[in-house]
Amino acid sequence: MTVLHRVLVVGTGLIGTSIALALRDAGVAVHLLDRNGAAARLAAALGAGTPHLPGQPADLAVLAVPPSSVGTAAATVLDSDLADAVTDVASVKVAPYADVVARGVELSRYIGGHPMSGRERSGPGAARADLFAGRPWVLTPSAASSSVTVERARELVRLCGATPVEMTAEEHDRAVALVSHSPHVLAAALASRLVGADTAALALAGPGLLDTTRIAGSDPALWTQILLANAAATADVLEAIATQIEDVVAALRNTTEPAAAQRVTDVLARGVAGRRALPGKHGQRPTTFAVVPVVVKDRPGQLGRLFADAGDAQVNIEDVSIEHSPGQPVGVVELSVRPDRASALVDALRARGWSVHE
Amino acid sequence: MTVLHRVLVVGTGLIGTSIALALRDAGVAVHLLDRNGAAARLAAALGAGTPHLPGQPADLAVLAVPPSSVGTAAATVLDSDLADAVTDVASVKVAPYADVVARGVELSRYIGGHPMSGRERSGPGAARADLFAGRPWVLTPSAASSSVTVERARELVRLCGATPVEMTAEEHDRAVALVSHSPHVLAAALASRLVGADTAALALAGPGLLDTTRIAGSDPALWTQILLANAAATADVLEAIATQIEDVVAALRNTTEPAAAQRVTDVLARGVAGRRALPGKHGQRPTTFAVVPVVVKDRPGQLGRLFADAGDAQVNIEDVSIEHSPGQPVGVVELSVRPDRASALVDALRARGWSVHE
Repeated sequence: MTVLHRVLVVGTGLIGTSIALALRDAGVAVHLLDRNGAAARLAAALGAGTPHLPGQPADLAVLAVPPSSVGTAAATVLDSDLADAVTDVASVKVAPYADVVARGVELSRYIGGHPMSGRERSGPGAARADLFAGRPWVLTPSAASSSVTVERARELVRLCGATPVEMTAEEHDRAVALVSHSPHVLAAALASRLVGADTAALALAGPGLLDTTRIAGSDPALWTQILLANAAATADVLEAIATQIEDVVAALRNTTEPAAAQRVTDVLARGVAGRRALPGKHGQRPTTFAVVPVVVKDRPGQLGRLFADAGDAQVNIEDVSIEHSPGQPVGVVELSVRPDRASALVDALRARGWSVHE
Repeated sequence: MTVLHRVLVVGTGLIGTSIALALRDAGVAVHLLDRNGAAARLAAALGAGTPHLPGQPADLAVLAVPPSSVGTAAATVLDSDLADAVTDVASVKVAPYADVVARGVELSRYIGGHPMSGRERSGPGAARADLFAGRPWVLTPSAASSSVTVERARELVRLCGATPVEMTAEEHDRAVALVSHSPHVLAAALASRLVGADTAALALAGPGLLDTTRIAGSDPALWTQILLANAAATADVLEAIATQIEDVVAALRNTTEPAAAQRVTDVLARGVAGRRALPGKHGQRPTTFAVVPVVVKDRPGQLGRLFADAGDAQVNIEDVSIEHSPGQPVGVVELSVRPDRASALVDALRARGWSVHE
């Protein structure tokens, strides 16, 4: 059935190594190549494959290299007959494709790709075979991509547990400008205001600021390259966002103007509507799951008891979050469960002496 | 010891009811008042106190009302001798204080306050006695506030499990413009771009966009009032953020300019520095805790088994997150533990057959 027996992974960072681990789990022979030999050997030690070139051309090479290196890497792999076909995982798709074309790569053997997964950490040590499970993985076949090349890329996506989504390179770049690249700039612009801020002010920061700035921790060099490679589409989105912010600033500078409140409310209300437009578990969580808060002591075994008691009640925990501050003797565990199971869980936990706040 | 025996809570929404629940847990007599009688009765039914006015003046009244109602409520409570002293919980402090002064309230009996806690949900039903546990609670005594008034407010904060932080009203408003009010506008401005976006683009949204826009779901009417009441300080921060964004836009519009990459990197690098400036568990998590990812099946009892096994290993779980997509048969549970306990946990879980990815 499978069309992938042997895969060459070029670049054994977080993404490359995670792909390699997933392929190994699926029984595929994986060869690892990195210009830093130590990184390839570390990935191999983690069970991601063998740090040697294949003796015969691989069915597919996955280029997990920076966007600006995709063209060179594709040309090298195909010219050296290291693989029959290549795909990449770069966060932009138009520029690498132009690069591939410019280098005279045989276009039937190339298809662009972008798994929509990541972590805050990087490097092979952070890799996980399940990094792509259930996530979209964009494929951007060109008119020239052969059906064999496309089918091998689709199989790669399936073996990684991801969902293939096909679109043009241009559609991809516009989409990620909106859902990924602009948010990074916004988070950075906000976080940049915290540099040199009063300690007393920073001490008041809560989950809202932490969430809003979380992705600002990403690698500036890599993200500069991504943003420059998707410059026009990202600039369009950022300009529209800046206009909204300036609108609010203008209203806040003239609060006596009758329309000031309405101008602020308009932006906030559009924000609520935009937030609702987002698909997925997190967006739907307030309506999909009931949240049962339980107070627990911050010591070993407490969570074990809690989850064992929940398991005895035959209630599946869909999500968990723990809120407690360092030094506090108690914390709150929020158990998300299907709404029709919430009262059974509450009753069961209370019967066993838990402090359930519902 | 305690200086609070009887407290009047005015306004039984999320914050007021949570305060009332915490005070009840501490053995304080709590009286509940809301212009919506049903809300007060619901709070009372939740065990937050009695929905009747006190027969004698309360030691303290807590005004959990919108910012623009603080002055009126303070005057009413003190003129009617419903309490000896009053504090409020509004998200801004300068404007309510001006309002209190304008209404001729006896200033020795008033102290501003702002617990730095909240939830995405609102209303008495979402209230929790532990909402304030371990969080900062700003108190803004004026020079006129009596020592009795200040001491009662401090006791309120302590009984709610929060940490009192004293500053001036002006310092408070500048601080929350930075750490709370501006992030709300930014999240809304970003989320507003999602309205009418292609479904295919929205389907690519990942945790980054979900986190960055999470607080955009808040009530626009309440937040308009908060922003207008802290207009100048918030406008200053937003203007500086807009300038950073415009800087990036200018660089992205002229990528051939030699300095373009450096201009983008500068903003991103300042973002990394700002993010590092944030205190607290979440900010420090990458260095403070080791994360142990475990693959689990999505069915009842799995988490119970996992946490029981972790508890047997005498390892305290500091934080948990569960990542799985609907319809996927497996998910990943990330256990955060002290770094010196990570290998013990990994060994113990592997010995019991868990699929640990480290």
